[in-house]
Amino acid sequence: MTSAPAAPPARAYRRLGVEERRAQLLAAALTLFAHRAPDDVSIDEVAAVAGVSRPLVYRYFPGGRQQLYEAALGSAAEQLTLCFAEPPVGPPTERVGRVLDRYLGFVDQHDAGFSALLRGGSVAETSRTSTIVDGVRRAAAEQILLHLGRGSGPGQEAAGPRLRMMVRTWIAAVEAASLIWLDEGKQPDAAGLRSWLVDHLMALLAVTAASDEETAAVVADLLSQETPEGPAGRLATLIVPVVGGAAHLLPPG
Amino acid sequence: MTSAPAAPPARAYRRLGVEERRAQLLAAALTLFAHRAPDDVSIDEVAAVAGVSRPLVYRYFPGGRQQLYEAALGSAAEQLTLCFAEPPVGPPTERVGRVLDRYLGFVDQHDAGFSALLRGGSVAETSRTSTIVDGVRRAAAEQILLHLGRGSGPGQEAAGPRLRMMVRTWIAAVEAASLIWLDEGKQPDAAGLRSWLVDHLMALLAVTAASDEETAAVVADLLSQETPEGPAGRLATLIVPVVGGAAHLLPPG
Repeated sequence: MTSAPAAPPARAYRRLGVEERRAQLLAAALTLFAHRAPDDVSIDEVAAVAGVSRPLVYRYFPGGRQQLYEAALGSAAEQLTLCFAEPPVGPPTERVGRVLDRYLGFVDQHDAGFSALLRGGSVAETSRTSTIVDGVRRAAAEQILLHLGRGSGPGQEAAGPRLRMMVRTWIAAVEAASLIWLDEGKQPDAAGLRSWLVDHLMALLAVTAASDEETAAVVADLLSQETPEGPAGRLATLIVPVVGGAAHLLPPG
Repeated sequence: MTSAPAAPPARAYRRLGVEERRAQLLAAALTLFAHRAPDDVSIDEVAAVAGVSRPLVYRYFPGGRQQLYEAALGSAAEQLTLCFAEPPVGPPTERVGRVLDRYLGFVDQHDAGFSALLRGGSVAETSRTSTIVDGVRRAAAEQILLHLGRGSGPGQEAAGPRLRMMVRTWIAAVEAASLIWLDEGKQPDAAGLRSWLVDHLMALLAVTAASDEETAAVVADLLSQETPEGPAGRLATLIVPVVGGAAHLLPPG
């Protein structure tokens, strides 16, 4: 996201091409929609931030605020989807951790807009905005499945329904935790939240593996790629005393 | 939810009192909104299901479909909140399992309406409907905290921020899993889904306990109330071989 120049040269907008102008207006809209609920942003403000006239904004976006909002959302969704890309190399928990770091950076930078969009109840929310948000969720699920060795690319088997449900549920949990995090004044810090979300994924994989053969095979493969120094090793060490309290639940021997 | 009589006696509506009539119209609306998206339900259908005239519906609900939708949603929210109540007695995983059984029964009975409401993008969704939904989520969180020994009632300490975030995140995960379950034609069966959701809560408690002292104390107390025959014992037994694959991540000795 770029910010508009503080004092644009007078009539500068005459010198931009159509695509450049559109991109400039979108960037201005994105700046405003990132930090405010859509209903609180006016076309006059978008014009002011972009340093252009109100009629010029309407020339590019005849549908006014709603059209600008949907275009800005589409552009933010593209940015966010790019954050998910991570080469499938190295311990999987570290890869997921890096994806989450970028995701939480995006949430941090678009805090009010992110909250307003996902909390619902805004008049700017339509079936078109829901489709954009669902597209981001699907892209996130595909990326996570890729790191679990069940992506849609070459050389990977497609995931079965249990594993797919598990991943989609975890993604919803990440989204909900991000909203709670914004509510709570961004506490714990982003690194603490990321670490807990990676732990959450490991926990969900482990319990799903307990009742699903495919997930059990995925977990065995993932564990073989983890190291004692990484997130999986840290969690394994910390969880030993916790699960020690469950000894009385196991069959004798 | 009651269904309207198949063939109401002619002019029967003249004999009902104001409150009874209102309740009858709400029941008719709830039947329709449970199985269809709000935008697909018309006042004529509500009138037909209730066996009354269209003007009579407008006399009780001058705001038309939107007002009826919000009233029906409020009524459904009350029903759902009642499902959460469970005496704090016996193994906690069994209590949470019973709450989930009733919750999934509600989701099953209100499938299309539940999906339409929570997926967003409907014109019937307003800040008032979001407030109702958030109230249900808060009530669910309070009930779960009660079973973790951190309710707002007498004799319990209030939960700290990590535990509260954990519970709210799990509730969002339950909601997301329910929507996916409806998408997937209600597979696995409700008992299978309930069991996985209880496992999910136990997993999340265990990993949160690994990094939060309060949660560690809660988990130790919960485990002491569990039995080898219950959900915690079943999970403990099934997860031993899964976590066996993590032995190389632990410090030697």
